[in-house]
Amino acid sequence: MNYIFSYPNRFQLETGEHLYNLEIAYTIYGEESATETIWVCHALSGNADVLSWWSGLFGADKPFDPAKYRIICANVIGSCYGSTGPTTSYEPADFPLITIRDMVNAHILLRKHLNLQKIDILIGASLGGQQAIEWAIEENDLIKKLILIATNASHSSYGKGFNEAQRLAIFVDETYGRKNGGKKGLEAARAIAMLSYRSYADFAIKQSDTDAEIDAYRAASYLQYQVKKFSDRFDAHSYVILTRAMDSHNCCRNRTSIEQALASIKAKTLVVGINSDLLFPLHEQKEIARSIPKAEFGCIHSVYGHDAFLIEYKQLNTLINEFLLNGFKKYKPTTLKQKTNVN
Amino acid sequence: MNYIFSYPNRFQLETGEHLYNLEIAYTIYGEESATETIWVCHALSGNADVLSWWSGLFGADKPFDPAKYRIICANVIGSCYGSTGPTTSYEPADFPLITIRDMVNAHILLRKHLNLQKIDILIGASLGGQQAIEWAIEENDLIKKLILIATNASHSSYGKGFNEAQRLAIFVDETYGRKNGGKKGLEAARAIAMLSYRSYADFAIKQSDTDAEIDAYRAASYLQYQVKKFSDRFDAHSYVILTRAMDSHNCCRNRTSIEQALASIKAKTLVVGINSDLLFPLHEQKEIARSIPKAEFGCIHSVYGHDAFLIEYKQLNTLINEFLLNGFKKYKPTTLKQKTNVN
Repeated sequence: MNYIFSYPNRFQLETGEHLYNLEIAYTIYGEESATETIWVCHALSGNADVLSWWSGLFGADKPFDPAKYRIICANVIGSCYGSTGPTTSYEPADFPLITIRDMVNAHILLRKHLNLQKIDILIGASLGGQQAIEWAIEENDLIKKLILIATNASHSSYGKGFNEAQRLAIFVDETYGRKNGGKKGLEAARAIAMLSYRSYADFAIKQSDTDAEIDAYRAASYLQYQVKKFSDRFDAHSYVILTRAMDSHNCCRNRTSIEQALASIKAKTLVVGINSDLLFPLHEQKEIARSIPKAEFGCIHSVYGHDAFLIEYKQLNTLINEFLLNGFKKYKPTTLKQKTNVN
Repeated sequence: MNYIFSYPNRFQLETGEHLYNLEIAYTIYGEESATETIWVCHALSGNADVLSWWSGLFGADKPFDPAKYRIICANVIGSCYGSTGPTTSYEPADFPLITIRDMVNAHILLRKHLNLQKIDILIGASLGGQQAIEWAIEENDLIKKLILIATNASHSSYGKGFNEAQRLAIFVDETYGRKNGGKKGLEAARAIAMLSYRSYADFAIKQSDTDAEIDAYRAASYLQYQVKKFSDRFDAHSYVILTRAMDSHNCCRNRTSIEQALASIKAKTLVVGINSDLLFPLHEQKEIARSIPKAEFGCIHSVYGHDAFLIEYKQLNTLINEFLLNGFKKYKPTTLKQKTNVN
């Protein structure tokens, strides 16, 4: 079932600015009577309908079956899927800067509205994992289990560079700033993002050309098709706001250190990384697993890169089922070499 | 000294189209009397003035000293630095598709014009290396020594994806197609390129932010500064033509196989790769070194990624001096695992 939560008071953002008439679109699957509640934090281009975009993980006979669990997913503020954001504001380009913490604070209002005194499992990947980490720090008594996938404790400078390149492409589009504007720029931005979400090997395997080609390559037509599909469903102004929120992600801000912030997390935690992830490389998840007291680390081996969290369900489900069944085995780093390993 | 070579006849392109009034801008350093001639193939954004952009390799007391060598560098067709290209054509966006072989064939005309019966050392990195490989195949009796740096025998689908994303960004710019147009699009394109030329570690080391930041990050301001500098010196239409030429690169086209094409190269060859190169990963250079009969392989260890060929001069000079002094030690691959290694 889909719902809208309207917050009557003004909502203060981390910058000091405010949002008025805050609304949050959210979905609840499964029985009210279910013993365990799962809260899903979605990624950058996601929405509240988690069964549609994470169907390998959520659904009948999947690790998270609505018949067994109560599943809640809320659309982040700044997005274009029902919650307050640039598309709901009068001037789409004037929507204020929001941070990952702002997203989490908005969802905490919803949690209170739903009278949830605990979240049995909080799960998120990528931008969703960034929210889940912040939430597990801010409400560390309420979050019982935490599953973090292909995410980080502080967004990397390389990741910020990719996001900036995408915004530069969007700002080239002279229709940006108008309702539904910036579509061509958004397409270029999505093409950049896809290169960071995938890998050399994935393109080599699936987008190779015949030796005779001197134009019209598969990699190009593949990107052209995918980005058109994306610009039909997403808003350029929301894209700018959400990439800026991702850039803002830093568990350490106004706290002593990343390590101490993560050390305050009480949840039993599974941290999953992807060996070919260019944007959220493996050492970032290992660092999280090292610093969260009750954290286990698991690795997905894939050629897909970052996108593997939406593809490699067999490995992901095995890691999650094992974690839910047997709890965590504390991660013991064997080496920190990955920290300086460029890829 | 800078020169212009004008070709009186029509010049046939690989597509079957023709260029008329072909002109090639080139530079010659060093003495006519020098015993050895070096020909430099420049990379995508380079020009004929090799001492300006490859000063760590070319100059007094450098491996290639104009006092000892005769050094020739010619601007590729399609570029905006003096040779025939979009900026010299009436309609910049109508300049025909050219390939790496077209670039090489144009420079072969210049070689004949200069009455060069042999090239003692042919060197190129990246797009320059792609030209050098094609040239060493097409005129395998004339090229005595060959130095290939951070390049490939056939451009990868991932590389084509990066080039397509850059062109998509340029095409968003409504001023593209006009003389000097497409500058904003070119800036976004260059930002994308820089992410593929550098690495996660390079950004982590040099573009990290203070923990308090929630906007205006160093990675962003760094990119903004660099891309503005680039758009001031380069043309968007040339950029589209040269990335298309790079995409066309395939030693195998109209030949039996890449291996057999490379096997026909007679030059003593040094192939250099960079361990952090995302765009031209190490296994591409190892494959080249394996297939060229008299080829040695050397690796530059760097956090810089692809750009290391313009930065890591100490390692590069050591490899080159060793090669020039002692000749090649045939590369013997220990494993082909790199072929499927995503990074």
